Amino acid sequence: MRFDETYAGNVFIKSHPNYEESKAVLYGMPMDWTVSYRPGSRFGPARIREVSIGLEEYSLYLDRELDDVKFFDAGDIPLPFGNPEKSLKEIKEFVRKVVAAGKVPIGMGGEHLVSLPVMEAVYEKYNDLAIIHFDAHTDLRTDYEGEPYSHATPIRKIADQIGPKNVYSFGIRSGLKEEFEWAKENGMHISPFEVLEPLKKVLPTLAGRNVYVTIDIDVLDPAHAPGTGTVDCGGITSKELLASIHEIARSGVNVVGFDLVEVAPIYDHSEMTVNTAAKLLREMILGWVK
Amino acid sequence: MRFDETYAGNVFIKSHPNYEESKAVLYGMPMDWTVSYRPGSRFGPARIREVSIGLEEYSLYLDRELDDVKFFDAGDIPLPFGNPEKSLKEIKEFVRKVVAAGKVPIGMGGEHLVSLPVMEAVYEKYNDLAIIHFDAHTDLRTDYEGEPYSHATPIRKIADQIGPKNVYSFGIRSGLKEEFEWAKENGMHISPFEVLEPLKKVLPTLAGRNVYVTIDIDVLDPAHAPGTGTVDCGGITSKELLASIHEIARSGVNVVGFDLVEVAPIYDHSEMTVNTAAKLLREMILGWVK
Amino acid sequence: MRFDETYAGNVFIKSHPNYEESKAVLYGMPMDWTVSYRPGSRFGPARIREVSIGLEEYSLYLDRELDDVKFFDAGDIPLPFGNPEKSLKEIKEFVRKVVAAGKVPIGMGGEHLVSLPVMEAVYEKYNDLAIIHFDAHTDLRTDYEGEPYSHATPIRKIADQIGPKNVYSFGIRSGLKEEFEWAKENGMHISPFEVLEPLKKVLPTLAGRNVYVTIDIDVLDPAHAPGTGTVDCGGITSKELLASIHEIARSGVNVVGFDLVEVAPIYDHSEMTVNTAAKLLREMILGWVK
Amino acid sequence: MRFDETYAGNVFIKSHPNYEESKAVLYGMPMDWTVSYRPGSRFGPARIREVSIGLEEYSLYLDRELDDVKFFDAGDIPLPFGNPEKSLKEIKEFVRKVVAAGKVPIGMGGEHLVSLPVMEAVYEKYNDLAIIHFDAHTDLRTDYEGEPYSHATPIRKIADQIGPKNVYSFGIRSGLKEEFEWAKENGMHISPFEVLEPLKKVLPTLAGRNVYVTIDIDVLDPAHAPGTGTVDCGGITSKELLASIHEIARSGVNVVGFDLVEVAPIYDHSEMTVNTAAKLLREMILGWVK
Amino acid sequence: MRFDETYAGNVFIKSHPNYEESKAVLYGMPMDWTVSYRPGSRFGPARIREVSIGLEEYSLYLDRELDDVKFFDAGDIPLPFGNPEKSLKEIKEFVRKVVAAGKVPIGMGGEHLVSLPVMEAVYEKYNDLAIIHFDAHTDLRTDYEGEPYSHATPIRKIADQIGPKNVYSFGIRSGLKEEFEWAKENGMHISPFEVLEPLKKVLPTLAGRNVYVTIDIDVLDPAHAPGTGTVDCGGITSKELLASIHEIARSGVNVVGFDLVEVAPIYDHSEMTVNTAAKLLREMILGWVK
Amino acid sequence: MRFDETYAGNVFIKSHPNYEESKAVLYGMPMDWTVSYRPGSRFGPARIREVSIGLEEYSLYLDRELDDVKFFDAGDIPLPFGNPEKSLKEIKEFVRKVVAAGKVPIGMGGEHLVSLPVMEAVYEKYNDLAIIHFDAHTDLRTDYEGEPYSHATPIRKIADQIGPKNVYSFGIRSGLKEEFEWAKENGMHISPFEVLEPLKKVLPTLAGRNVYVTIDIDVLDPAHAPGTGTVDCGGITSKELLASIHEIARSGVNVVGFDLVEVAPIYDHSEMTVNTAAKLLREMILGWVK
Repeated sequence: MRFDETYAGNVFIKSHPNYEESKAVLYGMPMDWTVSYRPGSRFGPARIREVSIGLEEYSLYLDRELDDVKFFDAGDIPLPFGNPEKSLKEIKEFVRKVVAAGKVPIGMGGEHLVSLPVMEAVYEKYNDLAIIHFDAHTDLRTDYEGEPYSHATPIRKIADQIGPKNVYSFGIRSGLKEEFEWAKENGMHISPFEVLEPLKKVLPTLAGRNVYVTIDIDVLDPAHAPGTGTVDCGGITSKELLASIHEIARSGVNVVGFDLVEVAPIYDHSEMTVNTAAKLLREMILGWVK
Repeated sequence: MRFDETYAGNVFIKSHPNYEESKAVLYGMPMDWTVSYRPGSRFGPARIREVSIGLEEYSLYLDRELDDVKFFDAGDIPLPFGNPEKSLKEIKEFVRKVVAAGKVPIGMGGEHLVSLPVMEAVYEKYNDLAIIHFDAHTDLRTDYEGEPYSHATPIRKIADQIGPKNVYSFGIRSGLKEEFEWAKENGMHISPFEVLEPLKKVLPTLAGRNVYVTIDIDVLDPAHAPGTGTVDCGGITSKELLASIHEIARSGVNVVGFDLVEVAPIYDHSEMTVNTAAKLLREMILGWVK
Repeated sequence: MRFDETYAGNVFIKSHPNYEESKAVLYGMPMDWTVSYRPGSRFGPARIREVSIGLEEYSLYLDRELDDVKFFDAGDIPLPFGNPEKSLKEIKEFVRKVVAAGKVPIGMGGEHLVSLPVMEAVYEKYNDLAIIHFDAHTDLRTDYEGEPYSHATPIRKIADQIGPKNVYSFGIRSGLKEEFEWAKENGMHISPFEVLEPLKKVLPTLAGRNVYVTIDIDVLDPAHAPGTGTVDCGGITSKELLASIHEIARSGVNVVGFDLVEVAPIYDHSEMTVNTAAKLLREMILGWVK
Repeated sequence: MRFDETYAGNVFIKSHPNYEESKAVLYGMPMDWTVSYRPGSRFGPARIREVSIGLEEYSLYLDRELDDVKFFDAGDIPLPFGNPEKSLKEIKEFVRKVVAAGKVPIGMGGEHLVSLPVMEAVYEKYNDLAIIHFDAHTDLRTDYEGEPYSHATPIRKIADQIGPKNVYSFGIRSGLKEEFEWAKENGMHISPFEVLEPLKKVLPTLAGRNVYVTIDIDVLDPAHAPGTGTVDCGGITSKELLASIHEIARSGVNVVGFDLVEVAPIYDHSEMTVNTAAKLLREMILGWVK
Repeated sequence: MRFDETYAGNVFIKSHPNYEESKAVLYGMPMDWTVSYRPGSRFGPARIREVSIGLEEYSLYLDRELDDVKFFDAGDIPLPFGNPEKSLKEIKEFVRKVVAAGKVPIGMGGEHLVSLPVMEAVYEKYNDLAIIHFDAHTDLRTDYEGEPYSHATPIRKIADQIGPKNVYSFGIRSGLKEEFEWAKENGMHISPFEVLEPLKKVLPTLAGRNVYVTIDIDVLDPAHAPGTGTVDCGGITSKELLASIHEIARSGVNVVGFDLVEVAPIYDHSEMTVNTAAKLLREMILGWVK
Repeated sequence: MRFDETYAGNVFIKSHPNYEESKAVLYGMPMDWTVSYRPGSRFGPARIREVSIGLEEYSLYLDRELDDVKFFDAGDIPLPFGNPEKSLKEIKEFVRKVVAAGKVPIGMGGEHLVSLPVMEAVYEKYNDLAIIHFDAHTDLRTDYEGEPYSHATPIRKIADQIGPKNVYSFGIRSGLKEEFEWAKENGMHISPFEVLEPLKKVLPTLAGRNVYVTIDIDVLDPAHAPGTGTVDCGGITSKELLASIHEIARSGVNVVGFDLVEVAPIYDHSEMTVNTAAKLLREMILGWVK
């Protein structure tokens, strides 16, 4: 990671060189060892940083520039290959420090399971926390073929901690029948297929709340994000996702942390997915870090 | 094929192991030898089966699970390479048996010409048959540069048999001027460019009818299905195609057979097209096999 | 180029063999040496011609056939590799001759900078010229890191000549803050994000005017045109771009020249971008060359 | 094809514009409809011509330039998609004319079956004909699963006509046991695995003979030619194949025709196979057309 | 796996349908969760089986046909995603049964760590076991950044059990200085860079011994096997590897088990690596299963 | 570049953090604007650094570790897009400083023209300089279609300055007839096709000389380096190139600077070329920086 002087990796465009002065901290979580289908999201953070250099620093959507927000790019959290339990622990410890320092944690996955320890660390500080979750998949399993640590379980595990009623999922189009039934019975919010319109209805009810936003890039239709582990057609456009990010920016919620996960560059020869991820992150940083 | 014990290929997820007990029969028709542009759809069926393993068995759209429908995956019909005439004959004979057994034939192409013998075999049983056809192309030629067996001719050839008035094409955006004129003069229905809205208007007029549905994957915009022989921009989204499938499911038509053709995996490095094809088939099976 | 008898390259489908008899002249400008991100658009024209062979000659959108329009494919303008100044001069001289002969110049890029000398040559003849510009990027810089000849500058340079009030940009979603401010202060028209709806409002005000239309393929969302140098999500669909082309065709503007630039085939394994470019050109030729 | 004035395709670099004056005739045979594995060689000829533009005109190996040999590029022979019988007839008729005019036929495939009618047409003129055959596969089947016209049969069919003793195969590493037995019993020459060394031994025995050389690009190891239908490891290097071509050039045999087949560009993202094919053709033309 | 009747996956060409009657058992170990660089070898076994259908059943190298050897394809061993400890346990239990039944285990990886439990299970039966190991990498680490279960450790771990003097590595070109020192100090055999010539010297000393052969596909140069996690130039050709396999077949060693690992299809668009893997397996089966 | 504190890019594995203490300086020259065929080598340096992280730090070939050599990675020299003249000037000025500080310049291209200013700067200090040049192409043109600054000219231009007798080219297999004649007439050394054997003969004659080594990655056969602008078959293997590097390391020549150019990652989906480039650089650094 980048705290020592010999850091040798790329950083996100216009990230601030000084940790102490920054309001937010960007970090990669290059883990993909519990996925059940196509691995490769471990290379997401590095490639997103690399292409971020081609981003405009100015957002026409928000009329704001990256220079207006001080965020530090801490590099990637070193994770032990093939050991999910220890990896999650490392992530949690890192994010605890970021949150303790009053900074906004901004994560780049990696598979979706990496969001779990982040959300847990954030919840330790903000006990009124609500989760906004964009995804094609429910991720509400208790385990995956017996394994409790799986990319299919993070939302369930955090819901069990903060209460299902505080979890709001959007864009969902795949899951087990049992997952949808559990959500319904436990008062968790799921908006199937769509994101923007249901989000507009939910946001006013969350005004003033501390919110963590976790975005699985596969909420996008494969046409817009082919570079991900599990492509699932019938998703939303990148235009709709951008509008949803801006909707949150303009709402009264207090975003205390967020992430973008499941970017797997190898499946996208055109590099559109990493470029889209970089732009989405720019908009989230400009819109959500106040 | 899979009727003998030494079958050695993949089968579609949750296909039923027993032919006799099944209500529907899935089969591949790996033929691509008459295409005029890019071949490769011969590998469609095998790759669709392979990725089907990653599908959720439950459809949130239809609230139904694959276990609720007994369909047998018969494997691929063995076809003689480079011999379209004999290939079509083999297909027809196979489908005749399926239809005679009172089962619903579900075909995976292969090029679009493979739908012709299927539709003919179905028509032998259901003489009030109507065809619903989703495609970017008219496929209404009488021949292609002198060749009567061509991927550009199947709809014309079936229309000549069942009557043009019983053929309903949707999403069409390419063809010869003469093809559109022939359709108009002969009372065949063509909805240019769009699928969902015109379909909603047509379906009530078909209520109670026996209908065969043939879907060329290139009705989708290339953004949603790059893995096909002839990519033609200006198409519909996978969301719209899913909605159209569900519209048919909820209408009063009686789907007596259907197919999905022209999936050519090699042109799609992200594998989105085969994954989309697998999900479309799941929805068609869950929605149309009663 | 193709004026001498030994021309050895492809030509666009149904291009007319005789220069003198043609009303329009198609030509390639295979230059990509000033781009700041991904090069490769030099191969755009050759690949577009190659796949044009697969196009239907008839447009269902416009009910017109390529045989109805005489356009000559002049091949590619020979350009000195790595020398933008001399390249632009060569282009300008060529287009001057085309315009002088009363023919409509139709350019294929190459990077966007190639449009500058074309627009200058057209402006020499039509001094009431207006520019319609479809793009993801403003291209309004005065220079790029000190270089005046850059793919980021052509619209600014032509605006300085014909007056910013005569320039109409659509679909823009990226640029420097300063570029947008300059446009605003100088009365240049910019429609952010959208194309079709704002175009419908602008076109009536341009009725009767001589107009040059320049289309950067990256106005399309990367889902629809992954094969371009700078992919920028949040763009329009190919359906919307086709509709916009048809809107111009039906308006009262007099299109005196047009181009399609920034097609870089190597980034699109599916070849959808070159196929889309070929179809867009067919529609522009059929709709705009009267 | 290119005999009429409106020819609109690429031609091989430095091909001569005049048919009558040329000593050799290059032509494409874009057929791939009988292959049993991966199709796509129909695009070989067009892509080879396109990249030939990047070839040096001078061969350091042979100290000769393309300007030293007059060869005409006739374009592609139009072949009916999916109809092998008619396709072979068209090829045969074309090559008969070339041979009758005393010119050397130079074919580009397409699948290997296209070599059969060429060799037959050449044999009609040269009844002492010997065949030199470079390939990974024997191609000695009498039929392929019942089909007599197949990419697996051309060498057997020509051997039956000119006599197995006049056929010399090199580099073979795959085939049915029966094929090798047939070859052995009938006195046909097969050099397994290797090309250069056994060729050096055979060539002196062929001095003064009229010879047709047919090269399947898959005689190369897949490392050197990934862009082919059937990749089979354990092959020779491009260096060895170049040396073999030069060995024939320096021997006393009289090459009366030759071809290079089975180049399928889609499987080779790096374009190395088409570039290699273009260079091999340059060397064959410079070395064999006297 | 395939022991129950509802098995739904591909099997290797000409594998025997009956487990009991077979002398050897082929199985996949689709695990890639401890790799430190590029994952994806989990898809190796499925893709190798799929392309095996294109293999000739006859080996010209060994003059033997697949019908001459009865081997059962058991499908893939179900492994818990992201849990290496449990995965290794599952593999070991499966192989124990195979070995106990007197059958030869034939493994397809998956990452190289999967070979460890196999070798352990084989060693339980054959306590004079020697290991022949082809690889670019030493795989002699005791742990990888603290993790004992890693793709970088299997050879060390088995060497610790059977004694370093019984391990023979060939083709090695990468490793830590410490690994080479450990090997030297402990009498383990390492042939750097080369395989065939040093193997010829070693084999006579192993005559009559029970030997397990483990081949990491990356012993091949990346030119010959681009589809693997860690590409390392300076390797051997597929021709040399084939010759090495045949050398073992002709030696007096008794091969009691073997595997081929680290085939990661996604990095090889041409599919040469999976085709090569299938052919290598054919030769190993024909040459080593007596 | 990296001299200021806010450097935000990757660096080569084990590069030293301090410029002053280092004996050698690595830098990228991301320029590709004068190439006549396929651009893309501008992305070579960044991708080589990125994959260098996967390199072993120890060389088994040289028994030396990267920690044994202090080399500083200065990042990329900022070059003005599309302006070769100014770019070359920037490079020259940078290298002058490196050489003046007594450090060894190590360049990563970019196209081959970038080597020219480097060699000129090195020659300013070492006036007995000899050039060792590995390449498929002569690069001896005086201009390319009129342009003096071209990737086809650097060796000629430096030969004109230091004297053709001091230039030694190896592996050459393509060029104009005139280039070879010029070389011969002027006493320049060219070893056609081969590298290792002729190098062994030349090196003793250069013992004690100050030598600059420039390697165009396309000296490798395309099988070994598909990721380059101009693929030219008949080249050497990576094994031979490694051996040639080691041969120089063991000779008595004094390497005062070196580079590796023309790595264009986009054409190599497997990433083998950038991985090979990284390993070659490791060997050059370990073998040549004393």
